[in-house]
Amino acid sequence: MDEANRTEIASLGEFGLIEHLTKNNETRQAGTILSIGDDAAVIDQFGRQCVISNDLLIEGIHFDLMYTPLKHLGYKAVAVNLSDIYAMMATPTHITLGLGVSSKFPVEALEEFYEGVYAACEKYNVDLIGGDTSSSRKGFIISVTAIGEVAPDKYVTRTGAQVNDLICVSGNLGAAYLGLQLLEREKKIYLENPKVQPDLQSQKYLVSRILKPEPRADIVEWLQEHGVMPTAMIDISDGLSSELLHICNGSNVGCIVHEDKIPIHADAKAMAMEFGVGSAACALSGGEDYELLFTIKQEDYEKIVRNKDISIVGYITEKSEGAHLLTNGGNKHKLTAQGWNAFI
Amino acid sequence: MDEANRTEIASLGEFGLIEHLTKNNETRQAGTILSIGDDAAVIDQFGRQCVISNDLLIEGIHFDLMYTPLKHLGYKAVAVNLSDIYAMMATPTHITLGLGVSSKFPVEALEEFYEGVYAACEKYNVDLIGGDTSSSRKGFIISVTAIGEVAPDKYVTRTGAQVNDLICVSGNLGAAYLGLQLLEREKKIYLENPKVQPDLQSQKYLVSRILKPEPRADIVEWLQEHGVMPTAMIDISDGLSSELLHICNGSNVGCIVHEDKIPIHADAKAMAMEFGVGSAACALSGGEDYELLFTIKQEDYEKIVRNKDISIVGYITEKSEGAHLLTNGGNKHKLTAQGWNAFI
Repeated sequence: MDEANRTEIASLGEFGLIEHLTKNNETRQAGTILSIGDDAAVIDQFGRQCVISNDLLIEGIHFDLMYTPLKHLGYKAVAVNLSDIYAMMATPTHITLGLGVSSKFPVEALEEFYEGVYAACEKYNVDLIGGDTSSSRKGFIISVTAIGEVAPDKYVTRTGAQVNDLICVSGNLGAAYLGLQLLEREKKIYLENPKVQPDLQSQKYLVSRILKPEPRADIVEWLQEHGVMPTAMIDISDGLSSELLHICNGSNVGCIVHEDKIPIHADAKAMAMEFGVGSAACALSGGEDYELLFTIKQEDYEKIVRNKDISIVGYITEKSEGAHLLTNGGNKHKLTAQGWNAFI
Repeated sequence: MDEANRTEIASLGEFGLIEHLTKNNETRQAGTILSIGDDAAVIDQFGRQCVISNDLLIEGIHFDLMYTPLKHLGYKAVAVNLSDIYAMMATPTHITLGLGVSSKFPVEALEEFYEGVYAACEKYNVDLIGGDTSSSRKGFIISVTAIGEVAPDKYVTRTGAQVNDLICVSGNLGAAYLGLQLLEREKKIYLENPKVQPDLQSQKYLVSRILKPEPRADIVEWLQEHGVMPTAMIDISDGLSSELLHICNGSNVGCIVHEDKIPIHADAKAMAMEFGVGSAACALSGGEDYELLFTIKQEDYEKIVRNKDISIVGYITEKSEGAHLLTNGGNKHKLTAQGWNAFI
């Protein structure tokens, strides 16, 4: 390779890189309905549709074993993949698991990891059908593929949002990010003085949000039961801003988000204050919440407000109006994707 | 974890470890037809069947970038996964790809890798439907999931071999292992004296067998066209011995293999002599050939002999007779799985 023509991965960013590498991707199979570019792919299997998502989790990049119990890690590895399937309004049915582990891990460590995997499989009623394990030179590497099903053309992509649609969010945002900051702070204190044992009991909620996220199966079921078909949907892994921009870019629209409508847990507000950061900023750019972000038609408003776990945070506008946040102070800020970028 | 009760992964081995971790795996989905333990899993999708396989390839464990061009690596990552699907007598249709790359790789390196991925997709008529890329702390990590289809209950597992069945092998064995030894030798010479450039032109065949394996789609098609339904099938990734033992254990049978029937390429024989090893040993324990090993009923003998690319190497016996190799010298050796073990 010519070093003079070297392009750094960081210069494209995670999403830019995938787009760059896959822009010439051709599809040959008639059964390929939705390819690269959404939470999951959709393939036609003999008249019904199969939804597939794949994630790679790497120690030191996606998790820190210093404060992540292996059982939680196993649970989370499954949970975040199922979240991608639910984000298509589909139902996960199966997963495969590939592990790379260095010899520093004893069999007992893998047993703990698998306990978490099985717990998530049981809770979300999916079967583990493939388990491959090999060694790695360093650290712990996890690859999960999740497979789900959906009735023909009942899946929801990122590309269907229309002007005047309402923007909805499940649960609350920013707590996982603050839980992570808390764990990072306690790790630092511990490394400086191993005699100080962290007391995280009082922050159980924030810590659980980062260590044991739950995909929102309940929200997808509720929407299906109440006949609400979102026009676009995505799960929030990289922060509200980044995900909203995915929907806006994919759907060719703009948006307005009201800062005061963003759902934030009381514990997250208190911790944001302790860290001296805005809690809305944590929600917008924090990531790892694994809540659902979706848009609905205005006519579904009456139905949606009945679910106390869904917040309407704004609405879709013409593309020309851009994507903006209306702050509590009445200012209008352009939304930017400052979400977690694995390449920085 | 209690260090006194620490069990080393190496003490179980790769297959023992997977069995240990998944022995209590429960299936809940009615659609789960075949779970962990074969080349791929089979799930029922609305009356037709879907075959799924997943592999994790890690730099320094599964490949060495010093002598593996990235384009070849991309091709091989796809090829070895498709091989698992063909080994079920199924037809691959889709793949997803997850990459972990450290910042030492420029975008141009990933472009080369993807070129190889696309070349394999084109050759085997599969669609790349998911491409996830994130950073790694160190090295190159590849996760591929392959998805295929098969007519209801027309897949072939490792568990159906019966006494008196004939044992068949496609192509030839041992060449990939010898190609690898050659590359390792040249690497060592180069590291000791970088001015000496290796000349591998005369060994193109052996080198291509390790760097650019081709899954045996043609053999599966031929068997289907000629109405030969193998009783058991597996692809040869870890050497003939190891794979045969998988079939024997899975099918609860024994076997006899004739050393003089094992197909070995002339280049492999010559190189084995150069290295001072037995070429049959390379075939039995070498690995990475990605040929197909399968058993057929005796009544299919007349059909099979018409295909010059399939060799009959032995036959299935009662389990009580064990698994043995009959050497050219007339000795009977017990087959052992000395195949490549990622944990040694």
